[in-house]
Amino acid sequence: MSQQPKVLSVSDLPINEAKWITLKKIKYQDAEGKERLWEVAQRKTRKSSGIDAVAILAILKSKTNAFPPSTVVVEQYRPPIDKFIVELPAGLIDEGETPEQAAIRELEEETGYKANSVIESSPLLVSDPGMTNANMKLVVLNVTLEDKLETPDQKLDAGEFIVRRVIELQKLLGELKVYDSKGFILDARLHHLAAGYAMALSTES
Amino acid sequence: MSQQPKVLSVSDLPINEAKWITLKKIKYQDAEGKERLWEVAQRKTRKSSGIDAVAILAILKSKTNAFPPSTVVVEQYRPPIDKFIVELPAGLIDEGETPEQAAIRELEEETGYKANSVIESSPLLVSDPGMTNANMKLVVLNVTLEDKLETPDQKLDAGEFIVRRVIELQKLLGELKVYDSKGFILDARLHHLAAGYAMALSTES
Repeated sequence: MSQQPKVLSVSDLPINEAKWITLKKIKYQDAEGKERLWEVAQRKTRKSSGIDAVAILAILKSKTNAFPPSTVVVEQYRPPIDKFIVELPAGLIDEGETPEQAAIRELEEETGYKANSVIESSPLLVSDPGMTNANMKLVVLNVTLEDKLETPDQKLDAGEFIVRRVIELQKLLGELKVYDSKGFILDARLHHLAAGYAMALSTES
Repeated sequence: MSQQPKVLSVSDLPINEAKWITLKKIKYQDAEGKERLWEVAQRKTRKSSGIDAVAILAILKSKTNAFPPSTVVVEQYRPPIDKFIVELPAGLIDEGETPEQAAIRELEEETGYKANSVIESSPLLVSDPGMTNANMKLVVLNVTLEDKLETPDQKLDAGEFIVRRVIELQKLLGELKVYDSKGFILDARLHHLAAGYAMALSTES
């Protein structure tokens, strides 16, 4: 039976008890040769690829032009925010995986869609470089459907609750604003992509 | 005399010694009513606005069309990454400031440009909601110049080393790829904005 997830309590987490993340103190020399300190949060899960995670921009197209070019976003409860967040499909990279392999796997797990090909992988990106060393790549995947929009089954793990939603690229920013008005919180990377898309249409037309 | 900044050492940072960030353990109830744990990194600097930071997309335009619509990005050394990062101008929100006021202030400090008006503020955004509670708004500012591109003086604090660079919006993604090829690291939000802009031009044309 499904119910509203919620935070029950929040307590200090000493670094020697933390399994997934930790804090480090960086001593560095600035451009004037002066020694300074910086505090950083790090994931403890980074594998030998050196890249924590991938996000996936799936470009859904129809062979018969039965629907306009679209993408798929996911809605999920995130305990750090205690809200439902709208994000691009994403996930951590497993040991031995390339970012592209992780992207194809995560897209199918979280949305059910199987990628036909990799369109492009971004350079290495950092998510919040003043506060963490978290890094990622954005992988653009091509999903070509025979005709109409299909909604294949997701392949979620037990305890994973992810809702997927297909949105036309042209309507992405508008739909994110609707999500915001309904109390969802938007992932910054997804929002910036949608804002850039909308801005190009208004600036260059 | 300017020299290459660099990390000298990295050590564990117990949470009782950390001034800027901390770790918390969240106990939450999932959609099936099951109790689960999540680890999160948090900033300790959030003020009463409830929003940590702003990023600024400045739209630079010429009254005489002397240059194409452009924006300004900043390059700065980030100790958590030990590289120079290319980002949108950004900063933490001071006590008593609105996001828009913080955006106008930070734009002038980091780039010298004075905003003529606020074009738009984004909804509340989260930067990396699986790992941190960090949140922000993207504020789009209008900077209209009389004629040609001016380069007003930055207003940096002592010990702040920030290089600004004006880039045509149409060329933004291409210039980010050049930065990547030179060893700079790209901020994910800036990259996603540029990728969305470029994608709209190729998809909708």
